[in-house]
Amino acid sequence: MTPTEQTTLTALQSWKQTIGRLDTMLASIGDDDLSREVAPGRNRISYLVGHLTAVHDRMLPLLGVGERLHPELDAPYLDNPDRHSDPGQSAADLRQAWSEVNGKLTAALEALRPEQWLERHTAVSEEDFAKEPLRNRLAVLLSRTNHASFHIGQIRLTQ
Amino acid sequence: MTPTEQTTLTALQSWKQTIGRLDTMLASIGDDDLSREVAPGRNRISYLVGHLTAVHDRMLPLLGVGERLHPELDAPYLDNPDRHSDPGQSAADLRQAWSEVNGKLTAALEALRPEQWLERHTAVSEEDFAKEPLRNRLAVLLSRTNHASFHIGQIRLTQ
Repeated sequence: MTPTEQTTLTALQSWKQTIGRLDTMLASIGDDDLSREVAPGRNRISYLVGHLTAVHDRMLPLLGVGERLHPELDAPYLDNPDRHSDPGQSAADLRQAWSEVNGKLTAALEALRPEQWLERHTAVSEEDFAKEPLRNRLAVLLSRTNHASFHIGQIRLTQ
Repeated sequence: MTPTEQTTLTALQSWKQTIGRLDTMLASIGDDDLSREVAPGRNRISYLVGHLTAVHDRMLPLLGVGERLHPELDAPYLDNPDRHSDPGQSAADLRQAWSEVNGKLTAALEALRPEQWLERHTAVSEEDFAKEPLRNRLAVLLSRTNHASFHIGQIRLTQ
């Protein structure tokens, strides 16, 4: 294993552990409980799951590894706060979108070659990347892993 | 910059952003508000700050980069739940321990050579590391960055 392979696998392992952590939590939360708030007056679990699904779905084009699966999640879970409108998804739809998006994304990430992780992501220009070489795919993965952990910590408060 | 240097710097950047996020939040939380619970009946902010400080303090020997600064934080913030005993620290003590530990730790991490990140950490034997090469210093850093994000997400609910 080359050093770059090893660092990439370490970062992917951290991502998969984080996704797995929410998978485990969701398996123990009944459909009715998805509408529980993480704290009084704050986001509901369902909103945070939809929010994370939308953010991870956007990673497909951002990292240049695929087309989005669920752009319809942006309006209810990303562009607007919780309770702004009825997202129109059943609990089963939401659970399926979460699994589907993370399944496709993780498989695509595992197929990247080690050196591709240090290439720029699609939201940064070649010119800016020359000045800021840390705006690479790996930085996006670490940032989204932390973002997921941030909200998983909130959902954990309902358990 | 070699690829290993680049991945290491990317991971360190993610760690520093996460610590910086809590620094910013703490600067806006008054001493009296440190005793607020993140949700009814759950941990107080002060407990989570002490907990993260103790966990980060333990990273110094775990990563083989220094001696602990505050082993006295283990009993009140790691071995026992919140409100088990009076931790005996003022808000100022707690803020100072948080800054001091992260300052020393981050400086020590920045001084590691890129290849040292892929070496085993001190809690894994040479024999086990031969079988599981991802139990390296980088894996500890990513895991602790996620752990901090998990609790920062909870503290965020008080703001």
